[in-house]
Amino acid sequence: MTTVTHAHVRAAAERIAGHVLRTPVIETSPGMLLKLELLQHSGSFKVRGAFNRMLSAGEVPESGVIAASGGNHGLAVAFAARALGVRAEIFVPEVTSAVKVAGLKALGADITQTGAIYSEAAEAAAKRAAETGALPVHAYDQAEVVAGQGTTGLELIEQTGGVDTVVVAVGGGGFAAGITLGTAGSSGGPKIVAVEPELIPTLHAALEAGSPVQVGVSGVGADALGASKIGGLAFEVLASPRVESVLVPDEAIVAARRELWERHRLVTEHAGAAAYAAVMSGAYRPEPGERVAVVVCGSNTDPATLTTG
Amino acid sequence: MTTVTHAHVRAAAERIAGHVLRTPVIETSPGMLLKLELLQHSGSFKVRGAFNRMLSAGEVPESGVIAASGGNHGLAVAFAARALGVRAEIFVPEVTSAVKVAGLKALGADITQTGAIYSEAAEAAAKRAAETGALPVHAYDQAEVVAGQGTTGLELIEQTGGVDTVVVAVGGGGFAAGITLGTAGSSGGPKIVAVEPELIPTLHAALEAGSPVQVGVSGVGADALGASKIGGLAFEVLASPRVESVLVPDEAIVAARRELWERHRLVTEHAGAAAYAAVMSGAYRPEPGERVAVVVCGSNTDPATLTTG
Ligand SMILES: Cc1ncc(COP(=O)(O)O)c(C=O)c1O
Ligand SMILES: Cc1ncc(COP(=O)(O)O)c(C=O)c1O
Repeated sequence: MTTVTHAHVRAAAERIAGHVLRTPVIETSPGMLLKLELLQHSGSFKVRGAFNRMLSAGEVPESGVIAASGGNHGLAVAFAARALGVRAEIFVPEVTSAVKVAGLKALGADITQTGAIYSEAAEAAAKRAAETGALPVHAYDQAEVVAGQGTTGLELIEQTGGVDTVVVAVGGGGFAAGITLGTAGSSGGPKIVAVEPELIPTLHAALEAGSPVQVGVSGVGADALGASKIGGLAFEVLASPRVESVLVPDEAIVAARRELWERHRLVTEHAGAAAYAAVMSGAYRPEPGERVAVVVCGSNTDPATLTTG
Repeated sequence: MTTVTHAHVRAAAERIAGHVLRTPVIETSPGMLLKLELLQHSGSFKVRGAFNRMLSAGEVPESGVIAASGGNHGLAVAFAARALGVRAEIFVPEVTSAVKVAGLKALGADITQTGAIYSEAAEAAAKRAAETGALPVHAYDQAEVVAGQGTTGLELIEQTGGVDTVVVAVGGGGFAAGITLGTAGSSGGPKIVAVEPELIPTLHAALEAGSPVQVGVSGVGADALGASKIGGLAFEVLASPRVESVLVPDEAIVAARRELWERHRLVTEHAGAAAYAAVMSGAYRPEPGERVAVVVCGSNTDPATLTTG
């Protein structure tokens, strides 16, 4: 029994209903489904965890909420804070794209850009939270956040009546862990294919080592999949026979992102295309007849980069 | 009783099932629904009519199919022809965007770019069809095409259980007419808000005149809504108390297109944003509690134009 359970995901779904979109699922060819979580408010699934954390807290302190984020989590926390009428202070590392910083400003958050990578921004945010008493909303390693992200999986099962396999991107692992729990059923649940860029193998390295370990952070996924260590809660859930860890090279992510636009008219950031890349590149090969849902999970990107460069 | 009926739309839906996507509907705020037809194969609803026309024809001649198109209809015919293994010859006017011409080439169609506007390309195509015996697939004024486009409406009703109002863009009128028929039920059916750019008011002018009349063609919608006269079949259907004709200025379309990206992560061409523009600009104002579905219908655009210029 893990710290976060299917029941927590169900409770989260009730709590956040009305605040988040029920994102659609399309079947692009027989047995190949895409869960369009990139159309979610704030451009990624991260609002699910953010709302669940804030709405679980009872009263949010006068000083508001505080978060560190490569971008999408920050956007999500800022979005949820605005919706609930509380202050948001967001710490972002310098790798964060200009599009995301501009988005944060537009949502009215107070922003501090500091540290080369996510973990450094996270340390600064933790220090600041201790000073101000603001409610910390972790990007992945918090029970309410994992449960919130998991509502994506619960929704997917409701919408499809179940699938054989769910393919999902991993950074700190909160999303994949939540989905693993959210899709769990009495007879186990679908296989979870947990996809990471070769250049940021947080889960892959942890599974090999037997516990969370530090990894390098680089490549096209760094601004959203840039956690340098898998979260403890996520590892508890993902170190399971239901979960298969798969790595994809950056070129496969770039090609997948391009195909998602050209063929499916979906504009994704690189992290949002990583899961699709696993199937497109053959890093994960479904069996004939296998019903596979790929979660397309982030759209915070400059669409101009799709046709230039 | 019109030439094309609800029964024709139902028959079309059966005929084209499996060839077209069942595009999702999202509820972006209570009572505000978007039908995401921009995610359709070939980037617009036009494949519905194209498949229905080709599959209704029995045998397609050796010389294949032929069409004239501002772009999206051509892409759709080329897509359907490739899927069904027949030749496609497409005539496009010079106003057609480079993105669309490139898309046509990629689908393997034979392309002739001729005439300043759609109607001139259409004349050239008709002449050529008479020579080769190819099966003409009209962009809007053909019963099978109207019935095919109408499957969008039928699907919408199935997906939503019914709405009060459907907001849809009008060029030659095949799409809006099809949707009017496809959404018709025993108690009438939803109100249809038929939206046109002020600069291309084919339906608006026809309703005022009492029959189809020529109008000027200019502005941002010209490459997709560029028919210079409403289709005869469409007029038969759209001259109805269920239909309200609404005009929007180009600036409203441009603003709507931008908001569809920034807020909903949908990349549309201008024509694809026209219906949304009617609601966003207040050209059409829903009553409190009115359940409105806006059809977002085309994504054949260079996404770079969303953030530059
Ligand atoms: C678009 C996108 N996909 C996937 C992830 C990975 O989520 P997690 O860190 O919970 O594994 C993130 C994290 O920011 C993201 O923004
Ligand atoms: C994206 C888009 N929307 C709307 C229309 C209008 O359709 P119709 O000509 O059937 O009125 C078109 C026609 O090409 C289109 O491409």
